[in-house]
Amino acid sequence: MKKFIPPLQNINWSINSKEKIDFNISYTQSILADNNIIDSLSSTGRVFLFIDENIGKIYRKEIENIVIKSRKKYYLHFVKPDEENKNLNSVVKIIEFIDAQKLSRLSEPLITIGGGVVLDIVSFAASIYRRGVPIIKIPTNLLSIVDACVGVKTGINFGLMRNRIGTYYPPKKVLIDKNFLKTCPNRHISNGLGEIFKIALIKSSDLFNDLESYAFNIGIKEKLCYGALASKIINQSISLMLEELEPNLFEKNLERCVDFGHSISPIIELKNVDTLLHGEAVTLDCLFFSCLSYKKGFLQLEDLKKVYSLVREINLPIFHKDFTNKELIYENLEQTKAHRNGNLNLPIPNKIGSHLFLNEIKENEINESIEIFSEFYKEI
Amino acid sequence: MKKFIPPLQNINWSINSKEKIDFNISYTQSILADNNIIDSLSSTGRVFLFIDENIGKIYRKEIENIVIKSRKKYYLHFVKPDEENKNLNSVVKIIEFIDAQKLSRLSEPLITIGGGVVLDIVSFAASIYRRGVPIIKIPTNLLSIVDACVGVKTGINFGLMRNRIGTYYPPKKVLIDKNFLKTCPNRHISNGLGEIFKIALIKSSDLFNDLESYAFNIGIKEKLCYGALASKIINQSISLMLEELEPNLFEKNLERCVDFGHSISPIIELKNVDTLLHGEAVTLDCLFFSCLSYKKGFLQLEDLKKVYSLVREINLPIFHKDFTNKELIYENLEQTKAHRNGNLNLPIPNKIGSHLFLNEIKENEINESIEIFSEFYKEI
Repeated sequence: MKKFIPPLQNINWSINSKEKIDFNISYTQSILADNNIIDSLSSTGRVFLFIDENIGKIYRKEIENIVIKSRKKYYLHFVKPDEENKNLNSVVKIIEFIDAQKLSRLSEPLITIGGGVVLDIVSFAASIYRRGVPIIKIPTNLLSIVDACVGVKTGINFGLMRNRIGTYYPPKKVLIDKNFLKTCPNRHISNGLGEIFKIALIKSSDLFNDLESYAFNIGIKEKLCYGALASKIINQSISLMLEELEPNLFEKNLERCVDFGHSISPIIELKNVDTLLHGEAVTLDCLFFSCLSYKKGFLQLEDLKKVYSLVREINLPIFHKDFTNKELIYENLEQTKAHRNGNLNLPIPNKIGSHLFLNEIKENEINESIEIFSEFYKEI
Repeated sequence: MKKFIPPLQNINWSINSKEKIDFNISYTQSILADNNIIDSLSSTGRVFLFIDENIGKIYRKEIENIVIKSRKKYYLHFVKPDEENKNLNSVVKIIEFIDAQKLSRLSEPLITIGGGVVLDIVSFAASIYRRGVPIIKIPTNLLSIVDACVGVKTGINFGLMRNRIGTYYPPKKVLIDKNFLKTCPNRHISNGLGEIFKIALIKSSDLFNDLESYAFNIGIKEKLCYGALASKIINQSISLMLEELEPNLFEKNLERCVDFGHSISPIIELKNVDTLLHGEAVTLDCLFFSCLSYKKGFLQLEDLKKVYSLVREINLPIFHKDFTNKELIYENLEQTKAHRNGNLNLPIPNKIGSHLFLNEIKENEINESIEIFSEFYKEI
């Protein structure tokens, strides 16, 4: 019988390489008035557009106009912008659609116009079709401008789990046209301000002050469309987010201050999908942990009042009973811990514009935070 | 009325970063006799194993033994190794399974043991769950050792389209245990030799010669388990593949000689899923384009004979009628073109161990290749 001879000793292949990530986020004056925009985005005779149904209702004619002017053959696919629709089924529909057209692998980018839900769905589809085809994102509401379009995340929900399935996938480019904000409903302006408020509270007292000025002096009815202060707020918010994301695009480091607002909100958000928007849930989460920070002696009473006043002024909720439900809070914290590989890595503000991370919360701290959260808003 | 003030001029964020890819492919003497293997792969008290059903039938007891010895809590999930099962449904089942266990994000890698189909399915699931959790691949047949485990591709089929959905996702590590080959059916040894034959014909006359020696002097009944020549063949094949893949892991360059054998075979392979294995379809594709090369005056008659003789000797098919079906060939070429972004980039051998790329094939060349392919095998 033959003896088994082991393979040549010490054979071991080490694969080392670096993958370059390189894309731009830029403003454009007015996409729907720019007759050359389509030619600049697609180099073949065809153009593929994936449009948020809400945007389609308002802008379909204008979108078709610029496409017709480009004389390219165009393919429109409308995507429902609801969290319930942010699932595999919507992704499969997109893939069936582009596969039927034999989309070219590199030169026919998917162009998607819409809010965060739609951008997340379409970019996830783009990231897995043929192991990735190019995507160009055009965000149309404030939340997607300052959040969904900054960074490389794509995602869909899985059951009650937000973005449980997804990829890190850099877009080809992101184009921001603030004109879309003019038709963004006020509640969705507030929704976007929720994420801006989050990054301000945790990372920049300057932005916090600017947000206060805007809220108290100008007011959200202007939808951040006009004036230098509005532009400055959006620009600061994107820059602050990128400061955190760019060195950590693939989240190898799980201690991320931008996770503030996402500690106990994800399950509550999906549970209340009909009544609670993402920025609203994030804001409530921020308030809860501001109460905890106050309880622990970090955030001063005066600052906690400023935080609550600002949130109320930008028309975001300052109380929700699910954030007083211990069971839900613990369920969420456990999920958060799993998502952060067993560590809580809980960012909380220690003063306005600055943060620290907690890796433990005692039960009495949760209890007392619930108490403060349940009472404090009544005085605002 | 307020004038619209454009955002601060020339605001433009450029995101640049580099993502490090870093993993090892290494041999291990005998996984199922190594009592410490499980401890070395999982750092928590739990271990998650995704096992090819065919491997489960043979090795379930032994696998459970090493897991029990590790005293970790273990979770086994069996995956059907069929192309028909290489779909979203199988991926969803895996995700439901790990989500129910609240898999930790970084420290509980999915360990998958099996052939290429199973490794592709499980690694795709790993790549999209929480935007990616670690995966360790343990290939168990020759094809997955020399092909599926080299590189970073994951994938599932979509309708009749092979690997139409997938990602580029580096594993945490790859462990090769040649002992598994001892129970690999002969037809599947030939199947793996198909990919080795491909890389030899297109890239290395040395490997081609070694393969001839092995086939004619030793024979595939030894399943490449024993002897220095067998080890050398596997090692060369992996090294040659890596030479092509490592600088181009994400396929930014679509002119890839490793695509040889995959030009007109993908649709034919899925159409004949019950009768044609991957390595068999690849081999037939290689033969077809060897005929084309001969027709165009590159490959000499003597070499074409050597190619056919070797294929016959390693028990791979030398004729299949679908490769004479013009309609199927053109349909496939069109798909190939779309996949290579509008260019054919068709690698063909110009002599044994070397290649060139074609970007055009005339109809009469296809016709004459079909004629040669339909007749030549009869003389071997």
